[in-house]
Amino acid sequence: MFSLEIQTLIKHLSKLPGLGPRSGRRAALYLIKKRSEFLKPLAEALLSVHAAIKTCTLCHNLDTKDPCSLCEDPKRDTSLLCVVEEVSDLWAIERTDSFKGRYHVLGGVLSALDGITPEDLMIASLLKRIENSLKTEQPIQEVIIALNATLEGQTTAHYLMDALSKYPITVSRLAHGVPMGGELDYLDEGTLSLALKSRRPL
Amino acid sequence: MFSLEIQTLIKHLSKLPGLGPRSGRRAALYLIKKRSEFLKPLAEALLSVHAAIKTCTLCHNLDTKDPCSLCEDPKRDTSLLCVVEEVSDLWAIERTDSFKGRYHVLGGVLSALDGITPEDLMIASLLKRIENSLKTEQPIQEVIIALNATLEGQTTAHYLMDALSKYPITVSRLAHGVPMGGELDYLDEGTLSLALKSRRPL
Repeated sequence: MFSLEIQTLIKHLSKLPGLGPRSGRRAALYLIKKRSEFLKPLAEALLSVHAAIKTCTLCHNLDTKDPCSLCEDPKRDTSLLCVVEEVSDLWAIERTDSFKGRYHVLGGVLSALDGITPEDLMIASLLKRIENSLKTEQPIQEVIIALNATLEGQTTAHYLMDALSKYPITVSRLAHGVPMGGELDYLDEGTLSLALKSRRPL
Repeated sequence: MFSLEIQTLIKHLSKLPGLGPRSGRRAALYLIKKRSEFLKPLAEALLSVHAAIKTCTLCHNLDTKDPCSLCEDPKRDTSLLCVVEEVSDLWAIERTDSFKGRYHVLGGVLSALDGITPEDLMIASLLKRIENSLKTEQPIQEVIIALNATLEGQTTAHYLMDALSKYPITVSRLAHGVPMGGELDYLDEGTLSLALKSRRPL
């Protein structure tokens, strides 16, 4: 019923996160119907990303240059280092526009179930980076562990706190609590009890 | 925060039906992280569809040849013609594997609100196609109007029934009724009353 070319396109589109076989077909048809406006530009955008993308050797962010634009930006505070799981978390923090330090992308979290050990993550390069910075005139002073509030994320955070305890730096983590706009009635017990424990004087 | 290439890719992905800014970012990151497996193949699939895709001059289906593979298939019944709004509807009927005739894609429905008149749709070419077939030895004998059960779809169906009444052919439409697995309690009144009116003896 479909030509091979359309079948291949649907197969590839269906694999995108958020799309499945049905929405993959819809997306393919949309692209085909508006082929001059969308299909060609999308293909070209993909190819130019493919040609340009690099992993930053310093922080493991994805960018078109290495070191990445965040690591190269002289306006960013070198004394603050934020450790995240994935590039998507770095993007999420950047969108808040409230962090002006630098990042370190671990590339995942420790997981006994999936067999992810410290060697699989960018932990050695994190320690190396801190050690090197301590020898310079602008040492890293604080490491913010911004991992997901999942079991694996918290295990990894504990592991990192241990590994970082030997350096003369402050180690902090993101605050847990009631999300903005969150209703207490709908909040899980764990978050609510953490929010109670970490209550702040007004 | 993003390089221009990644921004452009996210912008294009966000426009796909089913994706928005957030899922567009997720899709972009997914493609970038698995760039050898997915990014290049997707770009190539898009380009090969772009190079190969044609609109069938006979039925207005999208395919890589013209006339399309459905119009060219000698095993399909030339006496049955199914009129649909969009190529996606043709795909939906083909997936049922229960129709072995040919198709005619209108390219939309009449809509006073959007200013869509009969001249904007492939109605003239439908009438021409029927007239031509009546002169051959394998004339079209039945036209099945398979338009969506929306207001515009039904308006267009009425318009087509009028236009087709002058030909010695049967004009039919899809049955309305309770969908498979549908619970009466959750069904809208219109469908339920139509299902009652069109009840069939057991």
